[in-house]
Amino acid sequence: MKLTTIYSHLRSDLSTIEKDLEKTIEAQHAILQDASTQLLKAGGKRIRPVFVLLSAQFGTYDVDRVKRAAVALELIHMASLVHDDVIDDASLRRGKSTIKAQWDNRVAMYTGDYIFARSLEYITHLNKVEAHNVLSHAIVEMCLGEIEQIREQYDLSQNLRDYFRRIKRKTALLISVSCELGAIAGDADSDTQLQLKRFGYYVGMAFQITDDILDFTSTEKQLGKPAGGDLQQGNITLPVFFAREDEEINTQLHALFENQPISRLDIEKLLHAIKETDAINRSKEIADRYLQKAFIALDQLPDNRAKKSLRQIAEYIGRRNY
Amino acid sequence: MKLTTIYSHLRSDLSTIEKDLEKTIEAQHAILQDASTQLLKAGGKRIRPVFVLLSAQFGTYDVDRVKRAAVALELIHMASLVHDDVIDDASLRRGKSTIKAQWDNRVAMYTGDYIFARSLEYITHLNKVEAHNVLSHAIVEMCLGEIEQIREQYDLSQNLRDYFRRIKRKTALLISVSCELGAIAGDADSDTQLQLKRFGYYVGMAFQITDDILDFTSTEKQLGKPAGGDLQQGNITLPVFFAREDEEINTQLHALFENQPISRLDIEKLLHAIKETDAINRSKEIADRYLQKAFIALDQLPDNRAKKSLRQIAEYIGRRNY
Repeated sequence: MKLTTIYSHLRSDLSTIEKDLEKTIEAQHAILQDASTQLLKAGGKRIRPVFVLLSAQFGTYDVDRVKRAAVALELIHMASLVHDDVIDDASLRRGKSTIKAQWDNRVAMYTGDYIFARSLEYITHLNKVEAHNVLSHAIVEMCLGEIEQIREQYDLSQNLRDYFRRIKRKTALLISVSCELGAIAGDADSDTQLQLKRFGYYVGMAFQITDDILDFTSTEKQLGKPAGGDLQQGNITLPVFFAREDEEINTQLHALFENQPISRLDIEKLLHAIKETDAINRSKEIADRYLQKAFIALDQLPDNRAKKSLRQIAEYIGRRNY
Repeated sequence: MKLTTIYSHLRSDLSTIEKDLEKTIEAQHAILQDASTQLLKAGGKRIRPVFVLLSAQFGTYDVDRVKRAAVALELIHMASLVHDDVIDDASLRRGKSTIKAQWDNRVAMYTGDYIFARSLEYITHLNKVEAHNVLSHAIVEMCLGEIEQIREQYDLSQNLRDYFRRIKRKTALLISVSCELGAIAGDADSDTQLQLKRFGYYVGMAFQITDDILDFTSTEKQLGKPAGGDLQQGNITLPVFFAREDEEINTQLHALFENQPISRLDIEKLLHAIKETDAINRSKEIADRYLQKAFIALDQLPDNRAKKSLRQIAEYIGRRNY
C-alpha cells in the first residue's frame, strides 16, 4: 500500500493545510518569493501534518483548530530545512565562497528565522499556552541536536547514547510533538496525549534509523544523491557503530576521517565493507524494536479509523526500502 | 544624568533579570558555553528589560510575572545579535572562509535559533496567548527587516519610506513591543497598552536615527569601530538621503558603490563632504520630531515614577552624542 493511499481520507484537510502553508510563507513579501516557491515545490510527504490530523481524531476533530498545529509543525520542519542548507552550499564550493553565496546565505538564514516565527504566530490562533510550551521546547531541543551533530562530526570517540540522543532531537521529537499537539488541538484527555506522544517518539526513532540504513543500502537513483553521504560528512550513524566492531573497518574509518577531504572511491570501499558485516541487519532489528514499542503505545488507544491509519503508517515506515 | 542613574531604583529587579538571562542561556549545555559567556559578558544596557519593567508599573507590578516579558525580549535581542554575526565574520576574512569559520558559523546560527526558542519557551510562563502573538509577530517583522536590509544594501534607488520601514522593523518594533508586553504583563488596560506601545515605537525610531547619525559624527574611539561603517557596508541611512540632494555627493556615492571594495580613504572623503552639508542637522530634527511624539504618547498616561523615568530615558536617547 502506498502512503498516500493510507491517508486518502485526509485528502481534503491536507489540501486546506497546503493552502495555508502557501498563504503563510508566500505572503505579501516578494523578497521571500524564491525561497518559498522552492520550498512549496519541493513538497514532501507532509508526514507531520498527517500525524497531527490523525492524532486529533482521538479527541474532538475540528479542522479549523487542528490545522493550527498541523501547519505550524510543517513550518518548523521547513524552517529547519532552510537552515540546514545555510553555509552547506558555500562549503560545497570548496572554501571559495563568493560574495553572492554569502549574501544568499544571510538571506536564507533570515528566511528560516522568518518561517520559524510565522509558525509560532500561526499557532497562536489555537489559543492554548500549552501548545506554545510544547512547540518552543521542541525547537530548543532541535537546535541542541543540530549543534551536537556539528560538534560530533568526524568524532569517533562518541558512543551509541550520543547517536540515539541526536536522532531523538533531530527527528523523533518533532514527530512526537506532532502527535502530541494533534491530541492537544483535539482536546483529547491527558492519557491519550501521552500515548500519542510516545507513539510519535518511537515511530520517529524507527524512521530516522531506517533513513540512516538507507544511506548505506540505497542506490544513488533512489536517494537522489550518492550513497554514503552521512559518512562523507562525518555523521556517524547506527550501522557504523556495529560495523566498527570489526577491527579492520575501524582502522579504515580512522584513516578516512584523518585524511580529509575524503575521496569518493574510499567511501565506496568502506560502504562495501560495512555492508558485508551484520551491521545493516542489526540496525534493522533496532528500528524494528522501536516500531514494536510504537505499536504497544497505540494499543492503549481506543479502536478507530485513525488508529488503523497510524498503524499502517508505522508499518510503512518500517518496511520502506528507499 | 547617566542612564544607570535614571533607573537606579530598578537595580534589584534588573539583577533578577540578569540572573535569569544567565540561567536561560548558559544552561546545562556545555556546547553553548562559548557563545553564551561572550553574550553575557558583552552586557549592554538592557534597555529593553528597562522598558518592560517601567511599562509594567502602569498596571499591577509583580516582578515574577514581569520578568517573563523582560527576559524574553532581551533574549530575542541577543539572538538577533548572534545571527547578525553569522557569516559577517567570514566575509571579513575576504572570501577566504576556512572550514573552521564555516563550522563556527553553523554553530552560531543554531545558537541564535536556540536562544530564540528559549525566549519563547520562557515567556510561556506568563500564561498569556496575547504575549505570544505580540512577540512572534515582532520576530516576523524583524526577520523581514533583516532580509530587506540585505536586499537594499548598495541600492541607490531606494527612498526614504524604505529607510523608515527598515529601521521600524530593525529597532523600533522591539522597543515598542517591550513597552507593550510590559503593560500586558502588568495587566494594564488596553488604552495604556496602546499608549506605551506608541511611546516605544517613537522612542525606538529616534534611537535608531540617532545611532545612524552617530555613525557619521562619532570618533572611532567612541564607536569602537571606524566611523562610516554603514556606508562601507552599503547601508543607506537618513543623513545620506539628505546629503544626496547635493549633486556632487550623489555622484561620488554612485562612483563609490559601483567600485567595490570601497577604500577607507574614499569613505573618509565622503564622510567629510556629508558632514559639510545640512544633512546631520536635518536628521537630528527628524529624530527630535519622533521624540516629541513619544512625549505626547507619554502625556496620555497617569503621572507616576515610571512615567518620569520613561521621559528621562527618552530625553537621554535624544541627547546622547556617542
